[in-house]
Amino acid sequence: MKRILTGDRPTGPLHLGHFVGSLQNRVELQNDYDTYILIADVQALTDNFEKPEKVRDNVLQVLQDNIAVGLDPEKVTFILQSAIPQTAELTVFLANLISVNKLGHNPTVKTEMKQKGFEDSVPLGFFMYPVSQAADIAIYDANLVPVGEDQLPHIEVARQLVRKFNGIYGQTLVEPEAKVGSVSRLVGLDNNAKMSKSLNNAIYLNESSESLKQKVMSMYTDPNRVRATDPGKVEGNPVFIYHDIFNKNKAEVEDLKERYIKGRVGDVEVKQKLLASLEELMEPISSRRQKYSDQTVLTEILHEGTKKAYATAEGVIDRVKDAMKLLRL
Amino acid sequence: MKRILTGDRPTGPLHLGHFVGSLQNRVELQNDYDTYILIADVQALTDNFEKPEKVRDNVLQVLQDNIAVGLDPEKVTFILQSAIPQTAELTVFLANLISVNKLGHNPTVKTEMKQKGFEDSVPLGFFMYPVSQAADIAIYDANLVPVGEDQLPHIEVARQLVRKFNGIYGQTLVEPEAKVGSVSRLVGLDNNAKMSKSLNNAIYLNESSESLKQKVMSMYTDPNRVRATDPGKVEGNPVFIYHDIFNKNKAEVEDLKERYIKGRVGDVEVKQKLLASLEELMEPISSRRQKYSDQTVLTEILHEGTKKAYATAEGVIDRVKDAMKLLRL
Repeated sequence: MKRILTGDRPTGPLHLGHFVGSLQNRVELQNDYDTYILIADVQALTDNFEKPEKVRDNVLQVLQDNIAVGLDPEKVTFILQSAIPQTAELTVFLANLISVNKLGHNPTVKTEMKQKGFEDSVPLGFFMYPVSQAADIAIYDANLVPVGEDQLPHIEVARQLVRKFNGIYGQTLVEPEAKVGSVSRLVGLDNNAKMSKSLNNAIYLNESSESLKQKVMSMYTDPNRVRATDPGKVEGNPVFIYHDIFNKNKAEVEDLKERYIKGRVGDVEVKQKLLASLEELMEPISSRRQKYSDQTVLTEILHEGTKKAYATAEGVIDRVKDAMKLLRL
Repeated sequence: MKRILTGDRPTGPLHLGHFVGSLQNRVELQNDYDTYILIADVQALTDNFEKPEKVRDNVLQVLQDNIAVGLDPEKVTFILQSAIPQTAELTVFLANLISVNKLGHNPTVKTEMKQKGFEDSVPLGFFMYPVSQAADIAIYDANLVPVGEDQLPHIEVARQLVRKFNGIYGQTLVEPEAKVGSVSRLVGLDNNAKMSKSLNNAIYLNESSESLKQKVMSMYTDPNRVRATDPGKVEGNPVFIYHDIFNKNKAEVEDLKERYIKGRVGDVEVKQKLLASLEELMEPISSRRQKYSDQTVLTEILHEGTKKAYATAEGVIDRVKDAMKLLRL
C-alpha cells in the first residue's frame, strides 16, 4: 500500500475550504493508502512564532476536525510534527542541497511573503519552509502528497531535493508525487478567491447552526442585482459555486440557476436552499465531533500515531545517515 | 563551573593555526570550565556535502588531535554533532527569529561565501550556519565560546537569537559570551594572513619530523633580503612571528632579531632554531597521539561524551518546547 502524507497547520479550526480542498479527498483515500496526517505545529510557528498559545490550542482542534469529517483513527496515522526530531535533522541535511536564490524564486513563497508583509524582513524559518516540508514528506517515505494547486511548487522543491540527495548519496529517499484534488480551492463567503481564516470569510467545520445560518444568509452574491426580479449572474457567484459543490440535488440547482438568470427567484430562497445542503453536510460531521470530544481520547490517538510515525522516521533517518557516511556511535 | 562550548570541523587534520588560535587555550581552560568540544560533522557538510567521506574520515582524526595537545578525555566532553538531533530541532526554532536579510549581512559569512565562490548560489545550509551554530551553543547551556576574532559576528548572532527567544518565550536559554584568545590567528607558511588547509600553507599537528623540517626550511621570509649579509625585516616576517609564538628562549629570539636586522645571520640558522622550538612543542603532542591511536578507544571516548551531551541537550530542548508551549505527548 502506497503512503500518503498530508497535514494541516494548527492555527485555527478547519473550514469548508479545507474540506473541499483536502479533507474530503483524504476520507476517500484512507482506504486505498497508508495515510499519514501531520498536525504541523512546527510549521505553524514559522509565521506564528510570537503566538505559541494559538498553535498549541489548535492542535487537538485540528485533529478533531479531521476525525469529524470521517477519517478513521484506526486506519490513519496522526502525527504531532514537533515530536519528530528526525524531520529537523533531515531539514538541516536537505538545506545543503538548495540555494538561497532558488528558494527566493519560489512563486508560492513570494506570494505568501507579500501577503504577510514579510517583503523586507522575511524570517529564515518562513523562507525555508519548503525545505522543511520536503523533509516532512521524505522522512516518512511518502509516495503521494495530496495538495492544492498553489502547493505544487513546494512538491517540486521536495522532488528536486530528493533527486539531488539520491544523486549525491545514492538511492535513499522516496521521490514523492503530487496528487491534486478535483476542486482545489474554495471561494470565500465574500467572493475572495480563497476561503481563509485570516480573511474572515470562512465557514468552519465546527460552526454552530445559528452562525452557519447567519453566514450563509449574508453571503456575497451578484452585486449588480438590486431586486429579486433583476436578471442575475450565476457564473462566479459564490452562492452558486457553493450550490454546485455542496447541493446534491442537481435538478434543484439547475432550477435555481435558470430562475436566477431570469430574475425569478430571490437571494433568500437561493441561500436557504444552500443552507439546507450545508446543514445536511454538517450533520454527520457534528455527530462524529461529539463522539470524539474527549481531550484524553484525542491526545491518546495523537500519541499512538506519533509513536508509529517516529519509528518510521527513525528508520529513514538511519538510512539517511548511513548514506551520508556519518559516523554512527 | 561555567560551561565552555567549542569545536572543530572535521575536514582535515588540525594544524598550528588551530593550536595557537584555540587548542592551546582549550587546554588551559579545561581545569576551570566544564568543557564541551564539538566534532562538527554536520557543519562540515554544509560546504562539503558532496564529500561525505572526507568528513567521516576526519572525525576521529580531529578527536585525536584534541587529545594529543593535552585535552583530557576524563575531563572534557567530546561530542559528535550529528548524534545530537536536538541541535537540529533548536536550529529550526531559532530560524523563525532572524531574517534572511540580516543573515545575508553577516560579514564573516559574506567573506566566506566569496572565498568559496558561492556568491550567486550559496546553499541554504551554508548561508544559515550561524543559526545552526547558535543552536550548537544554546543546546548545551554554554556560557562561554572561545573564538577567533573572525567568529565574533557569529557569537553576536547567537546572543541576539537567545535574547529574542527569551524575550518571546520567557527566560529559557543561556546567553553565551565570546572569549577571544590572545593570539587568534596564525600567519601561514607562505605569509598568507591565515594558516589554512585549503591554502596549503599549514604545519599539521601530526606532521612527520621530516615534513616539518622541509616545511620550516622553505618558509617565506623577508623577500627583499637576497644575501645573509643584507639587513632584514623582522616585523611581519612569518619566521619571526613564529619565533615570537613558539620559541620559549626569548633571549635567543631577541639575539636573532638583532642580527637579522643588521644582516648578521642567515635564514638557515633562524629557521633551524625555529625548527628546534617546533620540535620541542610537537614532541609531547606526538607522544600523546601514540597513546591514543586505537580507533576503538577513540570511538569509545566520543561515544561516552556524546551520551553525556545528549542528556544535556535533551534537558534544554525539553525546556525549549515547554517555553514554546508545544504540546507534549
